[in-house]
Amino acid sequence: MKRHSSNKVTSHEVAALAGVSRSAVSRTFTEGASVSAKTREKVLNAAAELGYRPNALARSLIVRSTQMVGLVMAEWKNPFYTRMLRQFSERLQAEGYQLLLLTSNTETDVDDAVRRLLQYQVDGLLVVSAKPSEALARECANTGTPVVLVNRLAKKLQASSVTCDNAQIGRDTVEHLVAAGYQRLALVRGAPGVLTNIERSDAIRTALAAAPGAKLVADVTGYLGYDAGRQVVAELWNSAAPPDAIICSSDPTALGVLDGARIDLGIDVPEQLAVVGMGDIPQSGWGAYRLTTVHLPVDEMIDLAVADLLARLADPGLPPRPMIAHATLVNRDTVRSSHS
Amino acid sequence: MKRHSSNKVTSHEVAALAGVSRSAVSRTFTEGASVSAKTREKVLNAAAELGYRPNALARSLIVRSTQMVGLVMAEWKNPFYTRMLRQFSERLQAEGYQLLLLTSNTETDVDDAVRRLLQYQVDGLLVVSAKPSEALARECANTGTPVVLVNRLAKKLQASSVTCDNAQIGRDTVEHLVAAGYQRLALVRGAPGVLTNIERSDAIRTALAAAPGAKLVADVTGYLGYDAGRQVVAELWNSAAPPDAIICSSDPTALGVLDGARIDLGIDVPEQLAVVGMGDIPQSGWGAYRLTTVHLPVDEMIDLAVADLLARLADPGLPPRPMIAHATLVNRDTVRSSHS
Repeated sequence: MKRHSSNKVTSHEVAALAGVSRSAVSRTFTEGASVSAKTREKVLNAAAELGYRPNALARSLIVRSTQMVGLVMAEWKNPFYTRMLRQFSERLQAEGYQLLLLTSNTETDVDDAVRRLLQYQVDGLLVVSAKPSEALARECANTGTPVVLVNRLAKKLQASSVTCDNAQIGRDTVEHLVAAGYQRLALVRGAPGVLTNIERSDAIRTALAAAPGAKLVADVTGYLGYDAGRQVVAELWNSAAPPDAIICSSDPTALGVLDGARIDLGIDVPEQLAVVGMGDIPQSGWGAYRLTTVHLPVDEMIDLAVADLLARLADPGLPPRPMIAHATLVNRDTVRSSHS
Repeated sequence: MKRHSSNKVTSHEVAALAGVSRSAVSRTFTEGASVSAKTREKVLNAAAELGYRPNALARSLIVRSTQMVGLVMAEWKNPFYTRMLRQFSERLQAEGYQLLLLTSNTETDVDDAVRRLLQYQVDGLLVVSAKPSEALARECANTGTPVVLVNRLAKKLQASSVTCDNAQIGRDTVEHLVAAGYQRLALVRGAPGVLTNIERSDAIRTALAAAPGAKLVADVTGYLGYDAGRQVVAELWNSAAPPDAIICSSDPTALGVLDGARIDLGIDVPEQLAVVGMGDIPQSGWGAYRLTTVHLPVDEMIDLAVADLLARLADPGLPPRPMIAHATLVNRDTVRSSHS
């Protein structure tokens, strides 16, 4: 068992050794409080010598705020999400919060992760690429703990949510492909139940219904990541109804489809086959790929999520709300131009 | 200001509503404690109805353990490190710990991040790709808080460290390149002060001194990541002493060098130029790249770091120790075979 022997040293003793007031010790250890550089140095030296450590947790029991935000990550493979994690960490840190991080391996154990974070009295919660149950979201709302879902809709949940306009993404993608002359579209998605992908899929079907001659020849789920993409392209290409365009629900999947098409199958991309991704991760812009993809507005999504969380932490009376960020199609080299 | 109204509900009230003993409530909320599925469900339902939330922090003040491990991340760009973060999160979570995460933007503000985590009474600390000052490491040791540095040596520091055998990495790389007929090696590194890279650089020089005819034509620092790699290859290739082999301190840098060489400069890799990376990130194995690189043993490093941290959490009397994991060169397509 761990012993924090430092807990025995008091701020009185630090103040005495440093030759400063107890208030100066307190200010030195309070984020953003005013204290001269010289005093700060005296206090830090005395604190180090005595092994003094202010206890943020004991303090949290008095002020009823831990300055911790719980973050549940349910998806790690896509660089899109690790970039989000980094930015959440940096942005909240700048506001004086620390991230308490838990991984949820499947969307089903999200509730367990959220419950564990709540036991740590986190001031608020970010849930990336997953969502808690209705009952647990209500519990959070009842106890004044704001929850923000990122990349998941909060339909029926008492939580804010930041998503992209999935209907618009589906429509833009279809219109772009059809204008370039592609007519047999295939859709490759990850886990079947993901609402964002279902919405995009629905929008793609709707847009195709309005495009004479064009149709959806395949809509497969369970393919996520480079290896899955590299495998699925052969299956689609050798099927009874081969596509002339493949839309993937993630960039790594699309990059796997691209390598599979060019290297394994000798397909000319974009002449014989178009490949479109979703996310616009750095690798998609790299020279060997130049993937045409939907740029998901990560920075805008992070801005919205952080702003909503901070506002509701400051004023627990504010209601949760749905927020939508705008995505744009990035034209690179894996869809032929509509003028060819 | 946040109010945890849930704190007002006691475990007595939950027990009464659920019709179970108070001990059953306590066991339901204690990680790993035995409780029947039926009792657990009764307790969770009653807790949800009342808005009860066991306070892990209040408990931590009594048992002197927060079950939180602080993690400082100083490097995010390389997928190598986000993979580490994910695995640390999952592994420690399985042992009942949560990660309290802080980002350190430069290696110089590591001490600030560590101090903030200590205020949260973390039971232990992982510092990835950076290290705290000697004084702060001593303070942690004095207060019984085990520290493990990952990918940084703990020379003179009272902390454990997990690194690779950098001398062996340097030696193996040079021997492999020289055996394949390359003679003018260039080294491309990130920040100049990084000890792991200095050690590899020293080992490369030592190995080259024993290889007649072969020499180091360039050793440049400040180039980290894809864009930097794509830029530096042109500078090296057009210099007075162009290399015939480039060793990069990270895989993303090497992938940038590779695209820059092939796409921007029309260089035949590996015939005119060899490219070697460091890390073996997933992208390096992708079909468009097939980068020859040093596989850094991430899993072994994580095993060593987690095992050491858990052992020292259980027994604060155990001394910190240096640990070394074994790296291997992965032959792919960016260095010609020594038989050609």
